[in-house]
Amino acid sequence: MQYPKSVNRLIDSYMKLPGIGEKTATRLAFFTIDMDNEDVQEFAASLQAIKQELHYCHICGNITDVEPCDICQSASRNQQQILVVEQPKDVMAMEKMQSYNGLYQVLGGVLSPVNGVGPDELQIKHLLERLKQNTDLKEVIVATNATPEGEATAMYLAKLIKPSGIKVTRLAHGLAVGADIEYADQMTLQRAVEGRQPI
Amino acid sequence: MQYPKSVNRLIDSYMKLPGIGEKTATRLAFFTIDMDNEDVQEFAASLQAIKQELHYCHICGNITDVEPCDICQSASRNQQQILVVEQPKDVMAMEKMQSYNGLYQVLGGVLSPVNGVGPDELQIKHLLERLKQNTDLKEVIVATNATPEGEATAMYLAKLIKPSGIKVTRLAHGLAVGADIEYADQMTLQRAVEGRQPI
Repeated sequence: MQYPKSVNRLIDSYMKLPGIGEKTATRLAFFTIDMDNEDVQEFAASLQAIKQELHYCHICGNITDVEPCDICQSASRNQQQILVVEQPKDVMAMEKMQSYNGLYQVLGGVLSPVNGVGPDELQIKHLLERLKQNTDLKEVIVATNATPEGEATAMYLAKLIKPSGIKVTRLAHGLAVGADIEYADQMTLQRAVEGRQPI
Repeated sequence: MQYPKSVNRLIDSYMKLPGIGEKTATRLAFFTIDMDNEDVQEFAASLQAIKQELHYCHICGNITDVEPCDICQSASRNQQQILVVEQPKDVMAMEKMQSYNGLYQVLGGVLSPVNGVGPDELQIKHLLERLKQNTDLKEVIVATNATPEGEATAMYLAKLIKPSGIKVTRLAHGLAVGADIEYADQMTLQRAVEGRQPI
């Protein structure tokens, strides 16, 4: 005997999620069978809602359920700064920090020739267009990740934007707060020394 | 800024699954946003289907999408044996083995006074009723887990069933196939010695 059809179907669905193999998917499916009907219906409805209600803001590329998104709409945000990130998740992280009050641009990834991602696959043209239209703009903060691809993308953006006279900055690299020097990797330590600040 | 409402809603749903905390749920929710619409709709539909199509067989208590379940319906199964397990998952494990051809009874758990599970919370009365009605029955194989609660439940069942003259057996305890004696725990080794077989 095999599992009933609907169990197999749910196992297949769970297996599409990252980091979930057949064993875990089976465990989750059986757990789902025992869950409250209400919770399962809410789960299904929330899955449908996320595809129906969410889309990418046509200005900054962040995920949103209103158009344009809350940040692009807000008059209280500083219109002189744009912070460029790879993914919508990075916007969330920045917003959690609660100390940046400017605008955002989500690139949708980083330049990665190996994976076939060139400038046209990212929101780079759109960013340049925004820079042209927004004459108040003073600074572009490039907050791509500290990976080789992220660094290359930052350099590429800097080269494109600098001629227009807009200041381009990059997030500081260095020791994480609370980190031990003893355990820091060489690259991080090197960057921390290079970027040392007067006290 | 918080996540859009529909993202929070999906995170909450993912967090109801076992072993998934806020961080993993957030990661899964953002992964879901990027999934094909088709896959997400199928996921939602399979969640709804599992609650609509599945139920417990009124005879053996196994999960099924037909009534009674395939095993209870089948004329080719040996009607003289009933194998008693804790959970529907245990039925699946037994069926995978492909060498047992009798009937099943799912108890729905084990006796556990600490957790408030007494005989009335399990399908014990129902099992005794089946034994009474099925006059062909020769053997009840108790396949509860090898935990203290599982053992106690097995003893309890044996005490109830034996007076009716039906043979009650218990799965053998011993070394797992492929296991090293060196690494076996004391209890397992003791059971293996006690249950030694002539060769």
